[in-house]
Amino acid sequence: MAKFTIAIHGGAGTILKKEITPEQEKAYTTALGQALADGFAILEKGGTAVDAVRTAVVSLENIDLFNAGKGSVFANEGSQEMDAAIMDGQTLKAGAVAAVKNIRNPIELAYTVMTQSDHVFLNGRGAEEFARQNAIPFEPDEYFFTSLRYEQLKQAQEKGEMMLDHRPLNHDKKFGTVGAVACDASGNIAAATSTGGMTNKKFGRIGDSPLIGCGTYANNKTCAISCTGHGEPFIRAVTAYDVSCLMEYKNLSLQDAMRFVVHDKLPQLDAEGGMIGVDAQGHAALVFNSEGMYRGVKNNKGLHEVSIYKS
Amino acid sequence: MAKFTIAIHGGAGTILKKEITPEQEKAYTTALGQALADGFAILEKGGTAVDAVRTAVVSLENIDLFNAGKGSVFANEGSQEMDAAIMDGQTLKAGAVAAVKNIRNPIELAYTVMTQSDHVFLNGRGAEEFARQNAIPFEPDEYFFTSLRYEQLKQAQEKGEMMLDHRPLNHDKKFGTVGAVACDASGNIAAATSTGGMTNKKFGRIGDSPLIGCGTYANNKTCAISCTGHGEPFIRAVTAYDVSCLMEYKNLSLQDAMRFVVHDKLPQLDAEGGMIGVDAQGHAALVFNSEGMYRGVKNNKGLHEVSIYKS
Repeated sequence: MAKFTIAIHGGAGTILKKEITPEQEKAYTTALGQALADGFAILEKGGTAVDAVRTAVVSLENIDLFNAGKGSVFANEGSQEMDAAIMDGQTLKAGAVAAVKNIRNPIELAYTVMTQSDHVFLNGRGAEEFARQNAIPFEPDEYFFTSLRYEQLKQAQEKGEMMLDHRPLNHDKKFGTVGAVACDASGNIAAATSTGGMTNKKFGRIGDSPLIGCGTYANNKTCAISCTGHGEPFIRAVTAYDVSCLMEYKNLSLQDAMRFVVHDKLPQLDAEGGMIGVDAQGHAALVFNSEGMYRGVKNNKGLHEVSIYKS
Repeated sequence: MAKFTIAIHGGAGTILKKEITPEQEKAYTTALGQALADGFAILEKGGTAVDAVRTAVVSLENIDLFNAGKGSVFANEGSQEMDAAIMDGQTLKAGAVAAVKNIRNPIELAYTVMTQSDHVFLNGRGAEEFARQNAIPFEPDEYFFTSLRYEQLKQAQEKGEMMLDHRPLNHDKKFGTVGAVACDASGNIAAATSTGGMTNKKFGRIGDSPLIGCGTYANNKTCAISCTGHGEPFIRAVTAYDVSCLMEYKNLSLQDAMRFVVHDKLPQLDAEGGMIGVDAQGHAALVFNSEGMYRGVKNNKGLHEVSIYKS
């Protein structure tokens, strides 16, 4: 039987290990485990890598623990602006959206851009008009706003941060992006990333998540990659495609290419964060240079892990 | 004396050679020659590659023959939405803007994002707010609208296209992006690209021009690249950074890397267009797979060319 694999992340730059409560840790690992199971179920039924990553990201977008979809952070103007991208490694087709508001599942809008438009990248109100024409579900502001669990978590974090005032403000939420990569039983791979961006982001800032080659990339010849971290250096390093090029042009393995980028190249740009990747043989790697990365990986050969911190 | 070089483009996908009038050809080559001279003058005075590419692109944005700045095409909603990016190969710093309206010189806004903000990529009204706070000049709609020369050219093109109805509609304007790359006397390189996008573009579409690694990239270790062509496949191919990776990881020369990408890789995605590039030794290359590319190149060792079609 062919090997099929899915990996997910819920962002790097986690709550510090010494601050997380057992209840918080359980909430995160339960949510990650559910998203992993949802995506893996698609692969088990013979579904495509594209559908598996969509499904896993939708699962992460629909809960309020991560900075994407329902849990998106507030931009400076008081509303959530969300970004997402998806890429199909078999066809090199891609779809992405930036600065969209009130979209329940931005990854589904990115998927619809990929499959139903002549374009790759739509933004802002134009992207929302495209969403309406394609019957993509919208949600009112309250959907993104009222979660008790989100408020509780935020209060806990604020408390922690006030006690440790040398820590970067809102460290957790700043890096909280979600993503998934998968290799299906046919050896096709795909990547998807979704984010609510940075807390207090201003000026219509777009990070690396929706940028093909930066936060998201997939190519059956090499790898499918979804990144999380401080977006600006990830853009300047063209991070996801760099892993692909190291594999294609220098014959590095997935793991070696990802380690080189995360541990050697990104630190030169003071970039903290990480990435998940698969190749078309079903290998997976989850690499980060931050204290932790919410993550999970599962294949049909017995691998099944969900974790937050370095082991 | 060190070698310094500048190359510029005014878009691939030109007016067909059999249709261009001598007057049109002269207008294009005069404008290209002036932008080349403006950028080269910066290098001659010992200025930086970043300032040289800014200056050349501003020159191209300020005339109405090219699809950028003043000459930007109309989006579907009746106004021009412009995109631009700049990257400094010495620092890997970059600035980009997308979907901005009424900005006289989008490349100057991108430069200000690079130098005066913590971000790389701003879009839409947020980017315009950042522009206002940084005293970037705005122009009224009429500035982008009323040029006699633009209208004349447009009429001429429409007439040509009606006579040849199998040609893609508005072929010229579709690909009309401007860009510059330069290597200064210190061996620092930079790239800049600016565009008004596609005629009749809808849904807030963003092309490759403002995307770091796709339409624009610079790194002293390898190359500075500015692309022009059908944006979507240029995004999916992560075109500009691909040239850089072929140089860094496969030791290809600038010319060989550009030729491989333009003539072998892009056609696999049905991508028509081209690119200009320099390396830190002052070599330049101008490569395209379309019938023509408005272009020019000049260095301090006697090279000085301005042309539109294949030689």
